[in-house]
Amino acid sequence: MIKKSLKEIERISVEQFKCFPKLNLSLILENIRSLANIGSVFRSADCFRINKIYLTGFSGTPPHRSIQKTALGSTQSVDWEYAKNSIDVIKYLEKKNIHVMALEQTDESISLLEFKPKTNVHYALVVGNEIQGVNQRTLDQVKAAIEIPQFGTKHSFNVSNSASIFMWDFFYKVSTS
Amino acid sequence: MIKKSLKEIERISVEQFKCFPKLNLSLILENIRSLANIGSVFRSADCFRINKIYLTGFSGTPPHRSIQKTALGSTQSVDWEYAKNSIDVIKYLEKKNIHVMALEQTDESISLLEFKPKTNVHYALVVGNEIQGVNQRTLDQVKAAIEIPQFGTKHSFNVSNSASIFMWDFFYKVSTS
Repeated sequence: MIKKSLKEIERISVEQFKCFPKLNLSLILENIRSLANIGSVFRSADCFRINKIYLTGFSGTPPHRSIQKTALGSTQSVDWEYAKNSIDVIKYLEKKNIHVMALEQTDESISLLEFKPKTNVHYALVVGNEIQGVNQRTLDQVKAAIEIPQFGTKHSFNVSNSASIFMWDFFYKVSTS
Repeated sequence: MIKKSLKEIERISVEQFKCFPKLNLSLILENIRSLANIGSVFRSADCFRINKIYLTGFSGTPPHRSIQKTALGSTQSVDWEYAKNSIDVIKYLEKKNIHVMALEQTDESISLLEFKPKTNVHYALVVGNEIQGVNQRTLDQVKAAIEIPQFGTKHSFNVSNSASIFMWDFFYKVSTS
């Protein structure tokens, strides 16, 4: 078994990426403190061809050296936009018939084990701050909350890990449904 | 929909964690440069009750402030051990009938879309260095390689993101099979 060289791992160009069909999934990153986390989310979003990333609140935006350090250029490929207020973005997306959910532990959360994306629906997922999670006022605006089941001593995942888990799960389920 | 408070999100103690059954999955972290990545892997490993983490090569080990910053105490719950040489760990695990695989892009990799863990087999997964991936000599010792399919402009994920995706996928598949 021979490891592939970078040359052998064929990848598409930024121009090709822009033209290719995307996953029916956008992300809304609300008040993400760590620029390293933002960059890592971009990198995973590039791999799974996420439709768009909305950066809101005090989330940092590209171009920034600390985002680039983990995004490794994926801020060029993945479409993104900054908006001060997540709720404005949610209202805009809902008007476009996009089903907005939050990744959060609430009294009504659906376990990611149970969540089955519909192939004809476009989704957006709000991912919240590293410490506070998604704002309650933002939660009041979304259709549903998804929770990644956890069985350990900690209460949450690193934010780029939870976003990456959700992106993979979404891709897996729409690919195998 | 009301966000749960930390008090409402019940979590087990370190002592309970030690006694509870674990997932049939261990990780071998080979030459991981970033202590933040090691800590994030511990945090996800705690959430999914991973059996054990082997830290090998020049991977840093707890206790370390930079690991703690992202592990948030999960180095206390998740069982771990340091070994200089991954290959010694692999040989030891294989003798115990543990099926060792690598997370790597090779000429024989199996897509994570296709990988179906058997519920009666205990697995271990080698996750390699941030730049170089898993060593070729280490790959020569493992039974199989698993590849997370990627469709973007980049060649790989952040290492804690790829490990977390694998852990979730493993948990999901054994839970729903």
